[in-house]
Amino acid sequence: MKFNISHKDTGSKARAGIIETGRGVINTPIFMPVGTQGSVKSVPQAVLADRIKAQIILANTYHIFLRPGLEVISKAGGIHKFINWQKPMLTDSGGYQVFSLSAIRKIKEEGVFFRSHLDGSKIFFSPEIATDIQRTIGADIFMAFDECPPYPCDHKYAHDSMLLTHRWLQRCVKRFNETEPLYGVEQNLFPIVQGSIYKDLRIASAQFIASQDMPGNAIGGLSVGEPVEQMYEMTELVCDILPLNKPRYLMGVGTPANILECIALGVDMFDCVMPTRNARHGFIFTSKGIINIKNEKWKFDYTPVDDVFTPEYSKAYLKHLIKCNEMLGATIASTQNLSFYMWLAGEARKHIVAGDFIQWKKNILPVLMNKL
Amino acid sequence: MKFNISHKDTGSKARAGIIETGRGVINTPIFMPVGTQGSVKSVPQAVLADRIKAQIILANTYHIFLRPGLEVISKAGGIHKFINWQKPMLTDSGGYQVFSLSAIRKIKEEGVFFRSHLDGSKIFFSPEIATDIQRTIGADIFMAFDECPPYPCDHKYAHDSMLLTHRWLQRCVKRFNETEPLYGVEQNLFPIVQGSIYKDLRIASAQFIASQDMPGNAIGGLSVGEPVEQMYEMTELVCDILPLNKPRYLMGVGTPANILECIALGVDMFDCVMPTRNARHGFIFTSKGIINIKNEKWKFDYTPVDDVFTPEYSKAYLKHLIKCNEMLGATIASTQNLSFYMWLAGEARKHIVAGDFIQWKKNILPVLMNKL
Repeated sequence: MKFNISHKDTGSKARAGIIETGRGVINTPIFMPVGTQGSVKSVPQAVLADRIKAQIILANTYHIFLRPGLEVISKAGGIHKFINWQKPMLTDSGGYQVFSLSAIRKIKEEGVFFRSHLDGSKIFFSPEIATDIQRTIGADIFMAFDECPPYPCDHKYAHDSMLLTHRWLQRCVKRFNETEPLYGVEQNLFPIVQGSIYKDLRIASAQFIASQDMPGNAIGGLSVGEPVEQMYEMTELVCDILPLNKPRYLMGVGTPANILECIALGVDMFDCVMPTRNARHGFIFTSKGIINIKNEKWKFDYTPVDDVFTPEYSKAYLKHLIKCNEMLGATIASTQNLSFYMWLAGEARKHIVAGDFIQWKKNILPVLMNKL
Repeated sequence: MKFNISHKDTGSKARAGIIETGRGVINTPIFMPVGTQGSVKSVPQAVLADRIKAQIILANTYHIFLRPGLEVISKAGGIHKFINWQKPMLTDSGGYQVFSLSAIRKIKEEGVFFRSHLDGSKIFFSPEIATDIQRTIGADIFMAFDECPPYPCDHKYAHDSMLLTHRWLQRCVKRFNETEPLYGVEQNLFPIVQGSIYKDLRIASAQFIASQDMPGNAIGGLSVGEPVEQMYEMTELVCDILPLNKPRYLMGVGTPANILECIALGVDMFDCVMPTRNARHGFIFTSKGIINIKNEKWKFDYTPVDDVFTPEYSKAYLKHLIKCNEMLGATIASTQNLSFYMWLAGEARKHIVAGDFIQWKKNILPVLMNKL
């Protein structure tokens, strides 16, 4: 994997770059749609590629491991062939889901014992196992197995957890270096900075992660309930330590405003379920502001949901579909929201290149947050 | 509306024709996908038109009346504009849903008092109201308000019900003739033959319906639980009485085999929720037979769901999506099943034109029914 920064913003720490992977390039800053179970919910792959113009999508290791399982993925020749997606993909390590979805779990030095949220069966994930699983899934970028501490958590817990994540990282790196991609396409391991909301821990973690000299670096454990200002503070602190010439991935973030603010702090990659999850509940992002399509005011509004992204469907129709729980409503709303997120990252990039990113961000933020 | 029969099969009563409506032509025999609430479940309109090649779709008057309601449809300029569908549409009269969905209802000479299955509100439908509602919805073809008797029902109930349906038809026709289309495009009223499974009633009803000289005629009250042989018997009996030069629409039918058999009896138009409902449960129709995608045998089958209709997705992937309840599974399966139904009607038409319909039907039926 190669990463070239073509433009650095003068008014902020934002950068525009290009990641070259074995399955094509990714223009940064980039938003990555989430396809938890091997499908970005309600959106066909052709729409994702041709209309939404996604450049890289995510899948969740924990979910794919449970269903359809590694044998199905392996015999298919990897996740790309299985779901028919030719562009880059990224998998998380499964760590976050083990902590958020599994009711019963036990964290030990060697790894995590937990039970499947589907059938209660006993499972064990370790850094080595998470690495092997992600080799089998075959994403272009995959994540180190970490512990994502809850929010709030005390300093001692956060410190111990961070050290465990660092030890686990070294085991991930060792296993990664001892193994090869299974499907003839390069894979890249990204380590994850942890440390909760504690500056000293975030600094220590960022320094440790930076020292690993991996092809890209991630910031985890944020956007888990902490105040947004703390999220920005931690992100800035960490970005200032992580190497300049490697892509930085802020995991699970966030709102359109979060994304623009964190681009300004030097983040290059984002993922979030917000555009698709909000879509299914009728919250629509547009370049003119936010629409709650369930609101009665849209009942007789026959103008397009969005002139550019979904010109063929009206607000009144989308409102009807969402209210009736028709699947087409989720498809239209998700197409709209993902198109908007891709547009937002693309516009940010354009303005970094043009040199007016900060002014553009200042002007557009109130528009994007505007409740229509 | 014009109907021209271009070819009559010599080995059966099948015919190939063209219906000309104000919104384009329909090649018969035809299958009409069902879009109950103004959306064919999980399938975007562009896919329906361009990929599935639907020529006419249905909406249900009862559902549209409840949600989004007539004011929304009327201000949109009719159902076509509301849902963004330019080709012909057909609405049922609401009668069937009043009887099947509403727990509380009272049938009187003037019409039916019932409660909404959504919020329990009191509603009254009459032949005049059902006609006015369908004028407001604006479909190209709409249906007379009838009583669809349950199966089984005794001869006296079926007889009384049929006579009520006939009296209601005359009121529908009167109201239809006193009113105009609201959106500048011609509308057509189809009457419905009833009579349950009683030959004498079906004959009497078909004669009465035929005497009305409407632009097309429908056969209702079948495929409601009676043995399939009785369904065929009633259909044949009725088709032999209905005018030759008007399209015949067999409501709510059916399986691929039902459709081919009834084409052979002289039916021109079909609708059924089977392709979309079965799709959502993982029952897939293909030109090689029927697939239950939940079956373990497909777990490692990476061949396309169908070489022609859904070549880009494998059986293994579709199985995974349906098992995980991912919406994309419903979309792929519905696209497949509707494409298959459209193909089936189109192939039947080709073979009627070619003069070998009966031989083709005999050869293909066992293949279509084959459980893969």
